[in-house]
Amino acid sequence: MIVRPKTTWFRMLFVWHGSVLHRVLAPLLVNFLLGLLAVWGSTHASHFFPHLNPVPFSLIGVALAIFVSFRNNACYARYWEARTLWGSMKNQARDLARFAITVTDLPKDDPQVARALNLVAAFVYALKHQLRDSDPRDSLARLLDGELVEDILRRDCRPQYILECLQQQLVAWCRQGRYGDILLESGLRKLDTLNAVLGGCERIRGTPLPYAYDVLLHRTTYFYCALLPFGLIGSIGLATPLISVFIAYAFLAWHAIASELEDPFGDEPNDLALASLSVDTERALRQAVDARDMPPRLLPDLDFRLR
Amino acid sequence: MIVRPKTTWFRMLFVWHGSVLHRVLAPLLVNFLLGLLAVWGSTHASHFFPHLNPVPFSLIGVALAIFVSFRNNACYARYWEARTLWGSMKNQARDLARFAITVTDLPKDDPQVARALNLVAAFVYALKHQLRDSDPRDSLARLLDGELVEDILRRDCRPQYILECLQQQLVAWCRQGRYGDILLESGLRKLDTLNAVLGGCERIRGTPLPYAYDVLLHRTTYFYCALLPFGLIGSIGLATPLISVFIAYAFLAWHAIASELEDPFGDEPNDLALASLSVDTERALRQAVDARDMPPRLLPDLDFRLR
Amino acid sequence: MIVRPKTTWFRMLFVWHGSVLHRVLAPLLVNFLLGLLAVWGSTHASHFFPHLNPVPFSLIGVALAIFVSFRNNACYARYWEARTLWGSMKNQARDLARFAITVTDLPKDDPQVARALNLVAAFVYALKHQLRDSDPRDSLARLLDGELVEDILRRDCRPQYILECLQQQLVAWCRQGRYGDILLESGLRKLDTLNAVLGGCERIRGTPLPYAYDVLLHRTTYFYCALLPFGLIGSIGLATPLISVFIAYAFLAWHAIASELEDPFGDEPNDLALASLSVDTERALRQAVDARDMPPRLLPDLDFRLR
Amino acid sequence: MIVRPKTTWFRMLFVWHGSVLHRVLAPLLVNFLLGLLAVWGSTHASHFFPHLNPVPFSLIGVALAIFVSFRNNACYARYWEARTLWGSMKNQARDLARFAITVTDLPKDDPQVARALNLVAAFVYALKHQLRDSDPRDSLARLLDGELVEDILRRDCRPQYILECLQQQLVAWCRQGRYGDILLESGLRKLDTLNAVLGGCERIRGTPLPYAYDVLLHRTTYFYCALLPFGLIGSIGLATPLISVFIAYAFLAWHAIASELEDPFGDEPNDLALASLSVDTERALRQAVDARDMPPRLLPDLDFRLR
Amino acid sequence: MIVRPKTTWFRMLFVWHGSVLHRVLAPLLVNFLLGLLAVWGSTHASHFFPHLNPVPFSLIGVALAIFVSFRNNACYARYWEARTLWGSMKNQARDLARFAITVTDLPKDDPQVARALNLVAAFVYALKHQLRDSDPRDSLARLLDGELVEDILRRDCRPQYILECLQQQLVAWCRQGRYGDILLESGLRKLDTLNAVLGGCERIRGTPLPYAYDVLLHRTTYFYCALLPFGLIGSIGLATPLISVFIAYAFLAWHAIASELEDPFGDEPNDLALASLSVDTERALRQAVDARDMPPRLLPDLDFRLR
Repeated sequence: MIVRPKTTWFRMLFVWHGSVLHRVLAPLLVNFLLGLLAVWGSTHASHFFPHLNPVPFSLIGVALAIFVSFRNNACYARYWEARTLWGSMKNQARDLARFAITVTDLPKDDPQVARALNLVAAFVYALKHQLRDSDPRDSLARLLDGELVEDILRRDCRPQYILECLQQQLVAWCRQGRYGDILLESGLRKLDTLNAVLGGCERIRGTPLPYAYDVLLHRTTYFYCALLPFGLIGSIGLATPLISVFIAYAFLAWHAIASELEDPFGDEPNDLALASLSVDTERALRQAVDARDMPPRLLPDLDFRLR
Repeated sequence: MIVRPKTTWFRMLFVWHGSVLHRVLAPLLVNFLLGLLAVWGSTHASHFFPHLNPVPFSLIGVALAIFVSFRNNACYARYWEARTLWGSMKNQARDLARFAITVTDLPKDDPQVARALNLVAAFVYALKHQLRDSDPRDSLARLLDGELVEDILRRDCRPQYILECLQQQLVAWCRQGRYGDILLESGLRKLDTLNAVLGGCERIRGTPLPYAYDVLLHRTTYFYCALLPFGLIGSIGLATPLISVFIAYAFLAWHAIASELEDPFGDEPNDLALASLSVDTERALRQAVDARDMPPRLLPDLDFRLR
Repeated sequence: MIVRPKTTWFRMLFVWHGSVLHRVLAPLLVNFLLGLLAVWGSTHASHFFPHLNPVPFSLIGVALAIFVSFRNNACYARYWEARTLWGSMKNQARDLARFAITVTDLPKDDPQVARALNLVAAFVYALKHQLRDSDPRDSLARLLDGELVEDILRRDCRPQYILECLQQQLVAWCRQGRYGDILLESGLRKLDTLNAVLGGCERIRGTPLPYAYDVLLHRTTYFYCALLPFGLIGSIGLATPLISVFIAYAFLAWHAIASELEDPFGDEPNDLALASLSVDTERALRQAVDARDMPPRLLPDLDFRLR
Repeated sequence: MIVRPKTTWFRMLFVWHGSVLHRVLAPLLVNFLLGLLAVWGSTHASHFFPHLNPVPFSLIGVALAIFVSFRNNACYARYWEARTLWGSMKNQARDLARFAITVTDLPKDDPQVARALNLVAAFVYALKHQLRDSDPRDSLARLLDGELVEDILRRDCRPQYILECLQQQLVAWCRQGRYGDILLESGLRKLDTLNAVLGGCERIRGTPLPYAYDVLLHRTTYFYCALLPFGLIGSIGLATPLISVFIAYAFLAWHAIASELEDPFGDEPNDLALASLSVDTERALRQAVDARDMPPRLLPDLDFRLR
Repeated sequence: MIVRPKTTWFRMLFVWHGSVLHRVLAPLLVNFLLGLLAVWGSTHASHFFPHLNPVPFSLIGVALAIFVSFRNNACYARYWEARTLWGSMKNQARDLARFAITVTDLPKDDPQVARALNLVAAFVYALKHQLRDSDPRDSLARLLDGELVEDILRRDCRPQYILECLQQQLVAWCRQGRYGDILLESGLRKLDTLNAVLGGCERIRGTPLPYAYDVLLHRTTYFYCALLPFGLIGSIGLATPLISVFIAYAFLAWHAIASELEDPFGDEPNDLALASLSVDTERALRQAVDARDMPPRLLPDLDFRLR
């Protein structure tokens, strides 16, 4: 996720923002060359050139904008749902922390409480690593003892197993008589919500937008942009390459942002800052037990990027 | 469901993606022939030809795009709701598994637990077969004993009966004193959610978009595309067949994708991969009891398709 | 509700689908006559005719499409919410059936269970008749004994009274010691959901879209269509009647579908098939108690219509 | 709220519907006069007149339609959310009535039950009067005894205090041993929902759409309409005043409807019929206790209006 | 938040509303100068000037409007969700107040009740200050005793710690035997909802719209507006500066409103009136215990602004 640097309307026009530009640079160059070709053709070989004018472009242009807009809406909805799921995970973490330190009547520095909250943090990190296909060993080792870490790593779906361990802790507290069935059930419901977050993230990750949308939109957008110079040359002459690159930029960059947001858990510049969100959640858990060893908040790098 | 193969923007223009194309190939061919006819007519028989120009097309074109876009949004919402229902089913399966192995205090390899989790898996498969009008016998026989399978197959709505059996198991555990009413009620609520998934899928399956939308949009889209060459011939001459096929492709393929997504439980290329989702859910259930006999994950076939 | 008959893209162009067409036939005829008048006028009395050209039509056309689309979205949302409410009613019926036969420990053929499930079915039928302003006597008499039927018919809102009877049954079972307060509360929550369905249907039925939308859109759409021939005649000449009827058809039929869906409980072809949904729910209830006397599923009539 | 009178498509064109028209009559007249001015200017003083043509209007027209449509969607969503909140209030009223007469085991004509249901009705009326800034004394005096009425009227937020009284009644029944904590908690949850209705209505009432939207849209729409005649005069000549009034009507009336719906609790023709909804809710409560003194349903007045 | 002053349609055209105008004044001035340049260039140096005409503007204009509209929808949704979260906080505050004074059986002026409700109010103020990066000391000192205030101020996330204190109070009441587990659980659920409000606000604050949208839209909108005069000059001549500033105003102001709403917790004119909402919530809490010392309602300042 790129953090918005403060700026004025004027400087924002020239802000260096590579995140999407680099994905459309090559096709924009092709478009520019086609614009030059159109200029050259209209003066030197006009009778060989296709008889295009802006009419079909206005016919298809609005339809294309509506369709691109649909894909963009769908992808942004995926992004925002993913963010909401991660937010809900932080909420549950805080709820569980409050639950563990008030209802059980255990002191804040009780090892059982610490282990339970570490399991919650481990769930968050394990989910992050599962969604990014990376190795959770280091994150888990920092939080849990070695044997349990090995146990978790052996499983197919690590967050699911961590939830199971956590549930066993809640049930154990109930069997120790720390609370009755009603509060147990209330605690288990929080775990069910964590599980729903896990399932929701797997759903977004595992089911991209139907591929036919991508293919159809990709083809129509690029074909539209490729023909554009030949449609504009008759009306705006020498300005064709510039204007056609501008229109192509709007369409292609819009298309490219949507592609980045489609899988919001990836590692691209506009994706969610899962690492930073995980640390935030761990900090909230640490605060709940007045811990001293707060992990430092992640700061954006020199490209204003937060991972 | 077609899985997105990794590719660049350039190769994506030529990726072979038959899923929607084959549905619009015939009308596109007709459109191309009409384009040739318009070219021929404009030179050889211009006084016989309808006096069309692009004006009415720009009048109706935007309206058409907005209406096609409505239908597309509605169909995609059905698709995504269906996916969310199946995701919710997996969540409940995991919740029930955690419930059965922590709250009842039964060992993970207890036959009652195994039977309960097999009933959950059987619910998933029975729903898949009901939604696809296929025969669930093999899937059920793999999970449950013969008599129960016969019992299930005799019913009108198999998943409903499986839920009933599952509920009887939960109530039985309560009567055995394994947990009290509060946890029983918590378990039953999970079954109610499974039932809501069943009902939601039946709703999406049983109530397509009002038919009048289909008829109206089909007629206007095809009529629009059929007249298009005669509207463009005056402005772009010989390029008419190509450009008119391009515009028709955008509209017809968009219309066709929506038609595929309308019943997301079908067997068409862009429909939900119910078989693969069922196996995923069964794997999650198996992991919960540390089972060794995990069913292998389904992999996409050579057309990148997941069923 | 019209069930979609299987067909190809080609035959679908000519499918006889009277549902919406008959509502717009008269205005389309008027539009056609205005088109002929425009053709006649442009050749015989051109100096008397209004100096129109397509410019104002493209100005207002897009705005009109956007506004028509808003009304259509709102009406479809009402339709789909109504369908979802009826789906939720079926879910609750099944939940109540499972509840009655597993938690109470009564046999499936116990008269109390039968009466409770009949009350659920009676609720569904009573709601259907209330929404369609028809007489529920026959449906109720088939399910409940005569005195209770008279009792119900005396009330202002019959479904509300049926819920009350059902709630008394659930409370009675609790007082008989069949279950405790926790399960009673769980049962009562299902009745609250049924009540929310009743309230939701009353809301949709009792509050149509603000009337000003209808009047405004009706006037602007019809005025637009009436002027259209005079705007097109200068550009497309003899093709005017045909093309203007085509454009008018798209706008008016779209407007008409939305009008049908606005009250989804009516008896028009695209409305919800309440009769069929009621029977489906009764069948689900019957299956739950292994009843033999399943009411037969309603089949679409010769016009593919399901009521 | 205006009730839709039954009519045909033809008579609907001429139906007298003053609700919105009277708000746009003055600007439409100005627009008509500007149209006449444009006609006069184009013949008598064409060299003094601004050189306008339809080009900028088509540039800004679509954008304007999209922006007007956004505001309209947002205002309609407020209207429908408000209606849903009032619907939810009726649902809770019925739920509480069923609760009071089945769970407490009190007879239907018990004074405590009557008082509780009167408190629910008083909540509804008090909310109506708060939202419309009117005096609730008469409505409350009809339902509650004098001292309590004075007590309520002294408070800042009357519905909040009524809820408190109701909650005390529910708690008292629990202390009398009529039900246990579980059913009490279930009753209190219904009051929390009533409270959420109160809060939701206050939110919609107290936070209109950001004012900047209104100012921006108002200015651009009116400026657009004022310039329109001068843009059209070159293309459609004498038809300018008529056509420009038609286009202005569509935009301004659309803008005006949205303004009416923005505060759905007002007293304008398209606002919610709070008086009628309150009576409906009271009738539902009366039916629950088989009361004879049903308040008569409010009927629309001669302008088809329901308040 | 700017409160809507009552006005007529005519005076509204000239209402001084600086909130957004001041953000677009500079670019509008630049646009006006470019318009003058275009007028000058078209008469004095027409052969040096780019050959533009309105064609590319109509191609890109609609697409731009659709994209601007997407960003606006997303930002408004953030604004409204934030408002709904604050509304939900007020609901919970009232629920907790009713809970504390009816269920615990403590008198309204009991110090424990007062402290609990002050903690709720402190939560609201602490959240406001966290969202606006301001110092909560004064607000907290007014409500809580000094030691607790210091304790709260030491924490990283103050509202989280206040919730913890509140939860300890609810648990303490349960341990004192004032209510059982069921009502405790019901109280804790309200705290979980307050926590969800905290998390939701942090989510909206911490995750702006992906930055790429801002950059892309900013560039395309400003570039579009800068080129506009040169596109219009050929069609509307001397009217160019005026009309082009009008079109630019619509696009840029729309863009600017969305930017203000994106972070609805800021201190800009159209942001949420957090100070006023906090006082409203405190007033509701004070009313619940019949307190005399109601904080006065905040009134809009001379610019109709509510903070």
